[in-house]
Amino acid sequence: MSDNIARGGQFLVTETKSEDIFTPEDFSEEQIMMRDSVKEFIDREVWPHKDRFEKKDYAFTEETMRKAGELGFLGIAVPEEYNGMGMGFVSTMLVCDYISGATGSFSTAFGAHTGIGTMPITLYGTEEQKQKYVPKLATGEWFGAYCLTEPGAGSDANSGKTKAVLSEDGTHYKISGQKMWISNAGFCSVFIVFARIEDDKNITGFIVENDPENGISLGEEEHKLGIRASSTRQVFFNETKVPVENMLSERGNGFKIAMNALNVGRIKLAAACLDAQRRTVANSVNYANERIQFETPIANFGAIRAKLANMATSCYAGESASYRAAKNIEDRINARIAKSESHQDAELKGVEEFAIECSILKVAVSEDIQHCSDEGIQIFGGMGFSEDTPMESAWRDARIARIYEGTNEINRMLSVGMLIKKAMKGHVDLLGPATKVGEELMGIPSFDTPDYSELFAEEKEMIGKLKKAFLMVAGSAVQKYGPDLEEHQQLLMAAADILIEIYMAESTILRTEKLAKSKGAENVKEQIAMAQLYLYDAVDLVNAKGKEGIASFAEGDEQRMMLMGLKRFTKYTNLPNVIALRETIAAKIVAENNYPF
Amino acid sequence: MSDNIARGGQFLVTETKSEDIFTPEDFSEEQIMMRDSVKEFIDREVWPHKDRFEKKDYAFTEETMRKAGELGFLGIAVPEEYNGMGMGFVSTMLVCDYISGATGSFSTAFGAHTGIGTMPITLYGTEEQKQKYVPKLATGEWFGAYCLTEPGAGSDANSGKTKAVLSEDGTHYKISGQKMWISNAGFCSVFIVFARIEDDKNITGFIVENDPENGISLGEEEHKLGIRASSTRQVFFNETKVPVENMLSERGNGFKIAMNALNVGRIKLAAACLDAQRRTVANSVNYANERIQFETPIANFGAIRAKLANMATSCYAGESASYRAAKNIEDRINARIAKSESHQDAELKGVEEFAIECSILKVAVSEDIQHCSDEGIQIFGGMGFSEDTPMESAWRDARIARIYEGTNEINRMLSVGMLIKKAMKGHVDLLGPATKVGEELMGIPSFDTPDYSELFAEEKEMIGKLKKAFLMVAGSAVQKYGPDLEEHQQLLMAAADILIEIYMAESTILRTEKLAKSKGAENVKEQIAMAQLYLYDAVDLVNAKGKEGIASFAEGDEQRMMLMGLKRFTKYTNLPNVIALRETIAAKIVAENNYPF
Repeated sequence: MSDNIARGGQFLVTETKSEDIFTPEDFSEEQIMMRDSVKEFIDREVWPHKDRFEKKDYAFTEETMRKAGELGFLGIAVPEEYNGMGMGFVSTMLVCDYISGATGSFSTAFGAHTGIGTMPITLYGTEEQKQKYVPKLATGEWFGAYCLTEPGAGSDANSGKTKAVLSEDGTHYKISGQKMWISNAGFCSVFIVFARIEDDKNITGFIVENDPENGISLGEEEHKLGIRASSTRQVFFNETKVPVENMLSERGNGFKIAMNALNVGRIKLAAACLDAQRRTVANSVNYANERIQFETPIANFGAIRAKLANMATSCYAGESASYRAAKNIEDRINARIAKSESHQDAELKGVEEFAIECSILKVAVSEDIQHCSDEGIQIFGGMGFSEDTPMESAWRDARIARIYEGTNEINRMLSVGMLIKKAMKGHVDLLGPATKVGEELMGIPSFDTPDYSELFAEEKEMIGKLKKAFLMVAGSAVQKYGPDLEEHQQLLMAAADILIEIYMAESTILRTEKLAKSKGAENVKEQIAMAQLYLYDAVDLVNAKGKEGIASFAEGDEQRMMLMGLKRFTKYTNLPNVIALRETIAAKIVAENNYPF
Repeated sequence: MSDNIARGGQFLVTETKSEDIFTPEDFSEEQIMMRDSVKEFIDREVWPHKDRFEKKDYAFTEETMRKAGELGFLGIAVPEEYNGMGMGFVSTMLVCDYISGATGSFSTAFGAHTGIGTMPITLYGTEEQKQKYVPKLATGEWFGAYCLTEPGAGSDANSGKTKAVLSEDGTHYKISGQKMWISNAGFCSVFIVFARIEDDKNITGFIVENDPENGISLGEEEHKLGIRASSTRQVFFNETKVPVENMLSERGNGFKIAMNALNVGRIKLAAACLDAQRRTVANSVNYANERIQFETPIANFGAIRAKLANMATSCYAGESASYRAAKNIEDRINARIAKSESHQDAELKGVEEFAIECSILKVAVSEDIQHCSDEGIQIFGGMGFSEDTPMESAWRDARIARIYEGTNEINRMLSVGMLIKKAMKGHVDLLGPATKVGEELMGIPSFDTPDYSELFAEEKEMIGKLKKAFLMVAGSAVQKYGPDLEEHQQLLMAAADILIEIYMAESTILRTEKLAKSKGAENVKEQIAMAQLYLYDAVDLVNAKGKEGIASFAEGDEQRMMLMGLKRFTKYTNLPNVIALRETIAAKIVAENNYPF
């Protein structure tokens, strides 16, 4: 494609301008209305009944899902011809985001149904399949569940043992096997099932209607650390008959379907960790403003204020990067549609294009929500350990986000692995920029006094330098190990950490720059502080992970040169005072008694 | 005192030799027997019944406590004349350590009873009080509970509203008030209660026998995030009559008693996070060796191996520092007894002397166990989120350790605050060394090529440099802010992080050096790798926190000079290859299928 729309992975080698990214401040009126109606729904139907979710009231989860269906929330991403609202990718993300605020149980049920439970059909289904299933799924008449994982096939999803055997008359397959960790299993009508035909290298996807008479049985509800009212059961298929016309896409295409469904799932999961963070910040500051110790609200203590600032900053960063990527995907889909691709193909390819960003977001935001809820507990002190406050379930619920939709370890490796593959295929030019960095390292650094008078001048230069750090470390690692690099997982993980921080920090700075341009820097000084704080921590991490990587494969002069480069690429001219930045951010949060960004 | 025994806080300004610290390798035969009998008890009576604890079977907790009493475990620290075993501080720590392996519920019940539930009487009781209560507590005939926290008085413990009013005839006090988060409340016979007499500035301690007829009532069991079978209830006192002879120590001495009880509690809590970590490592590597994905045990993947190495390293560091401090305390107690102090006074002062180290250990080890169990979940993947595996309860149980016995924030601030107070009182000379560091910064650094041929030569030099970094940052902060420093909590927290890392890293290196001297470096290469890995991460943290602190209070030339100093004090001549270090450590863990250190 030769258009000017952003390409996946390209952020690393191009300088993105703030006017070219979409931010939460750019929501349309329609999107804001949608957001508000989701918020209202959560505040009315979910948050006040939090204890029912914590008491594993699966029936209530189902009931609430039906209500969400009645309001159209389950069909946001579904085209209008199938009873959906046919809204764009950003709006879909917005709903995932604001539906997540109250409880991970409902958020998981919602995500499992609208994402991996429905999308495989909208993305890969035939017209007949879509006509038959999607309208029911879009309205909540039926619910969907995604059956990929097996006891012996988790991260290695393509190794499943579930079999699909063609009947002698060629009219149907008989599926037999055991699937586990199936969200919504307890109340779903349709399973997306992956099974192997004969000795195929890759698995195949099927749409399977739930029918106990047809060899389908469920295990007991699993007892889990969190998301207690998300129904999670094993599903057993015993010669379950599935008409041949219910195969999804082609034979052997299942692994691809599964992976593409997960790409969408990952970015939506990131969104689904956002409002949970906002509420955690809000609940925490409410408590800190009320709780008196040493004759003053604990919100006045620096140790508490620092936590509030850090919590809000990671949430703000997560918003910035999630909506940037969402809009990139939406634009890419629209560009493809404009070139007469089918909506289905366009969406599929549009998301696939940004698979790297989807993995990055999944990792970053799932770790942020964990950290955010962890600090929330600490702010609540002893009360944070009690089931009577919302912190403990927030912390438990957050824990699953680092495991499902591909563990964060798998996603870290994928993010770098996919980037390298893109480079090999010529889709992203890493070699050119990496070579340039090499040349720069051999040359004499500039000693000009830079002009940092403009907002974010130094910060944007720093982002550029961090990209060079990545290219230097990852580029040398590829040169050194070639295809064997994938066996050096520690190194890949370090490279992934660098990549993730670059994307997150850049998105945060660009969003804030855009905001400052429209509102005036003096009116968004807390957002500026958050962008600076996020970057500061990112720089530290890039330095640490870079050093770790370099020391693992370079020695002697080569090591010295690369370490020198790393130092140059992570050096501030004006070292920020992060203690003061946190104070600026916290003052606003404490004064507004809310997450106010 | 002018003897040669280590003094609290002194580690920062003296160079400790490896032969002067006690390590887990130095346990006596008697201690090893004690350890093995505790392990056997846990393996027989606790671990197989883990599910009963998870199902909140409080009666079973009580029953198991009685069994522990029958075996003498509740009386380890109690002098023989009161039915105890009269063992030293190290042995007490050892029991806390190995009793913690199976479940936080039992570990908390044990710690609350033997520590804060019994110690206030052994440390502050009159002979009559000790005769009356301690033998019953030492054998488990009675259980004790510690009533300090109130709804409005958590971290600010001295602000409690519970009142003690002297009766007109002067024979008893009437205690009224509400206490919360009282561990063992459900089955205890004796409460240590803190209450205020008239408008005293400080609270007063009392021994109160549990008697529902005497105005004592309990709230319902609290429903908590973790330690599910630790009985935690509110305790209400309504004009509860307490004979005047049941006052602990003197009127107004309660806050001091409370704080001293917490000092002991803190270091024992650190010990009580150790075997939990060992078991978590062992369970994780067992799983990783069994779980096949991509046609190989996941223990072969670098991302998993790195986790195992990090988990084991923090446990090893925790052991090193905990037993070092325990023996320092024991030595100090014995030195005082040798000078004819009462055992009671000696123990009190001995522990108080090392209050800084107690706070350091509480913070470091409670955070390590959290991280260890967190990685354990991640290694187990989806299974880690299930109540069917031991990881999820380990993670939940670990969470309380960062809150109780003083939150980690309070303990961080205490550690630095107490150090500064000691310096002011002339008990530790910080000023001299800090001045020297200042002079060193003004001078020209040595460009000699150092000789690092001996084991840990560079590492020990680095520890010395990290101490200089602390003195530089904290010294300048004290100079800058004087007594107002306590209002700069973010800065104090940063200084505390540096202090903590120095103590933990130094202890780990000294232990390993001692080990290498006795066994030969070639036979302890994994321990050497752990010491190096721990130090590496510590150096990174010192650098990060140092920079943060410096940027917050120094500007211009002063800032530049201090940053230059920090760089010098955190610079390796030979940058370790931490990826290779982790690999060395992991290879041993995976081969032994256990925590093998």
